[in-house]
Amino acid sequence: MNVTLSATLAANEDIERRRRAGERVLHLAFGEAGLPVHPALRERLVAASEHNGYGPVAGAFELREAAAGYWRRRGLPTDPELVVCGPGSKPLLYGLLLAVGGDVVLPMPSWVSYAAQADLVGARPLLVPAPPGEGGVPDPERVVSSVLHARSRGRDVRSMLLTLPDNPTGTLASAGTIGRLVEVARDLDLTIISDEIYRDLLHDPAGGFLSPADLAPERTVITSGLSKSLALGGWRIGVARLPSVVLRDRLLAVASEIWSSPAAPVQQAAAYAYTEPAELVERIDRSRRLHGTVARAVCDRLVRAGARVDAPRGGFYLYPDFTGLPFATSAELAASLLDGHGVGVLPGHAFGDDPKNLRVRVATSLLYGETAERRLAALEAADPLQLPWIRASLDHLSEALNGLGQERPAPGGNRHATVVPAPVTG
Amino acid sequence: MNVTLSATLAANEDIERRRRAGERVLHLAFGEAGLPVHPALRERLVAASEHNGYGPVAGAFELREAAAGYWRRRGLPTDPELVVCGPGSKPLLYGLLLAVGGDVVLPMPSWVSYAAQADLVGARPLLVPAPPGEGGVPDPERVVSSVLHARSRGRDVRSMLLTLPDNPTGTLASAGTIGRLVEVARDLDLTIISDEIYRDLLHDPAGGFLSPADLAPERTVITSGLSKSLALGGWRIGVARLPSVVLRDRLLAVASEIWSSPAAPVQQAAAYAYTEPAELVERIDRSRRLHGTVARAVCDRLVRAGARVDAPRGGFYLYPDFTGLPFATSAELAASLLDGHGVGVLPGHAFGDDPKNLRVRVATSLLYGETAERRLAALEAADPLQLPWIRASLDHLSEALNGLGQERPAPGGNRHATVVPAPVTG
Repeated sequence: MNVTLSATLAANEDIERRRRAGERVLHLAFGEAGLPVHPALRERLVAASEHNGYGPVAGAFELREAAAGYWRRRGLPTDPELVVCGPGSKPLLYGLLLAVGGDVVLPMPSWVSYAAQADLVGARPLLVPAPPGEGGVPDPERVVSSVLHARSRGRDVRSMLLTLPDNPTGTLASAGTIGRLVEVARDLDLTIISDEIYRDLLHDPAGGFLSPADLAPERTVITSGLSKSLALGGWRIGVARLPSVVLRDRLLAVASEIWSSPAAPVQQAAAYAYTEPAELVERIDRSRRLHGTVARAVCDRLVRAGARVDAPRGGFYLYPDFTGLPFATSAELAASLLDGHGVGVLPGHAFGDDPKNLRVRVATSLLYGETAERRLAALEAADPLQLPWIRASLDHLSEALNGLGQERPAPGGNRHATVVPAPVTG
Repeated sequence: MNVTLSATLAANEDIERRRRAGERVLHLAFGEAGLPVHPALRERLVAASEHNGYGPVAGAFELREAAAGYWRRRGLPTDPELVVCGPGSKPLLYGLLLAVGGDVVLPMPSWVSYAAQADLVGARPLLVPAPPGEGGVPDPERVVSSVLHARSRGRDVRSMLLTLPDNPTGTLASAGTIGRLVEVARDLDLTIISDEIYRDLLHDPAGGFLSPADLAPERTVITSGLSKSLALGGWRIGVARLPSVVLRDRLLAVASEIWSSPAAPVQQAAAYAYTEPAELVERIDRSRRLHGTVARAVCDRLVRAGARVDAPRGGFYLYPDFTGLPFATSAELAASLLDGHGVGVLPGHAFGDDPKNLRVRVATSLLYGETAERRLAALEAADPLQLPWIRASLDHLSEALNGLGQERPAPGGNRHATVVPAPVTG
């Protein structure tokens, strides 16, 4: 068993410790939404504070019905009986790996916990590189060869995990690629687990979103939650949409032995959130705009400092490539950024990338401010980039990036300042 | 993988369904405390409703410090750095099985989820019968032979799980047995996992309580939580006291990949609870008296109906033996009680007992009433047995038990009406 604390959580705790010790650290290492709870959700939690029963393992009916409505409004007919709630989408993903069984295909790079969870359940991930500019999905043609090869060696590959839009790259796979992956999944009889926790944070919702569940409802599980869209990470609530009673029952069997149910008062607040009342829709709209604006500003700073980076499409992540800088590994690069320049990011290695690729994940959501007041101000600002604390943080980042290039000469490094335009989806 | 919903949760959902369909069912199948949340805890949850960050994987410092104080006041010096919080003690127990690794010795019978969790992590439990009258612990001498035998066959046995006081039997192992088990654990180099979630519900706290951590702090993990003592099952909060940094770090690695942290507002309420303020101590005192009074009354009804049963010592469970009744298995007996007499209990089989032993687990805590008002009245009553709804339920139970004996003649059954006195602890 791998005994390392989840890389993102470990980085967060390290940076918090440094800050308590008085170090000035720009925290770009943690995937927390960095925004306050909407008062309407606090009210619902308060109103449900007398709920102390365990309730159904699948979650309260109100919550499952509301989550089904959420998906129906996105064109996915959903039976509340096929919705399972959990204390976060992370435990649901873990439970699904156990419930589906066998080995899993993961995109490379991908969120740190997928491979670690596979390790805990005794599965081995097949890491398949993402197509250029389309993070969160494995290259479809390479999936075929990789699965066939693994199966020829006796491995029991049963599922494929996608992140739409993606963490760590902040990009979104094209409809064409999703379509091809669905064909591949059918040919290879793979269950698709589609982690769509950032779906509502696509910076341009008009650009459209295609879920593999739109094309292959019979084999796709969707996981989601309120940690990102409504900044409820610490409340621990996630939902899964299952394709069949058989898989649902297997997931419930796992859930009932590991976590029982999400916290009951939180379930009631989440049930309200999934009805998508106007004030929460507006909150998510504002959050999406803020995430997009700041992610683009950080992208711009990265480009100006000479990194190659895909334009952000959703969530609050960027995954720049610093090829040409004088570091042997992404871990060395990240350590230099933290120790030498007070900027915390995660090395690409943590996401399964080749340690020698000089890529790091930059999470932009903790730039909004240290206090609830500043975060709310960022959310409400016409131009959040003009807020002095955000501007100061961006300048800190630029300084750090420029400093990075200067301290040690790059050995013949060839650095192009590039932003890669987003591919057209649709 | 075992794909059955946890037996207790499944029974609960089945009974709730029957009740919604209009069936009159006496619900004695579910280990929920059956009492309302104390208003002071609701206030703390409300006050913490703005907490939406993930926070440390181990739990908020205030909570770990408060839990350490809870154990210190019970004679167990505790470093908050060696406390790990989770969304219930169930996930902590699951995480510990993964973190410790290897196979685990379980008492027989024992709580339904231990063996199921072992199955999920790919471990095989060694089921060792409990000594007579001392549920929750395996017979020490049989542990030695069982572990040596398993090891001689190449099995890697690393831990032993105890429940003090016990679910399903409602009894408490003697200090002598605990002492012997600690010696055995040292000889065999086993980690002891001591599930003490019912500790504060010992009916006679003056009788004393010995934890294996008192004798072998270097190898004992204690798990606990607020689900039983303060009826917070649905809030999902548990705590573990670890014996070493090494095991703590392994548990944190698991926790960070499966559940991240308990719900943040719940952590704040739990931090308050573990400081043991007067109003909550009083609430637990009242709860303990109610649980004891009703468990003894049910014990009396069981004895009058001809069952053999150990006197209850803690929590809200009884584990009567109906040997002599005309049923082939405990499952048949439980089915007859439910379908023929409207009484829901769990068959001993679900707890790892021999299917042919006619033992069932009777949970008495859902007798206090269907509404918060009735539950509060039960808690405050000088003699809860005089409350009409509790008296009616007890009469329903007696009727059912008497009906059980009459519908089919026992084939030469020899039924003794016996209550087995509690062994002396200390």
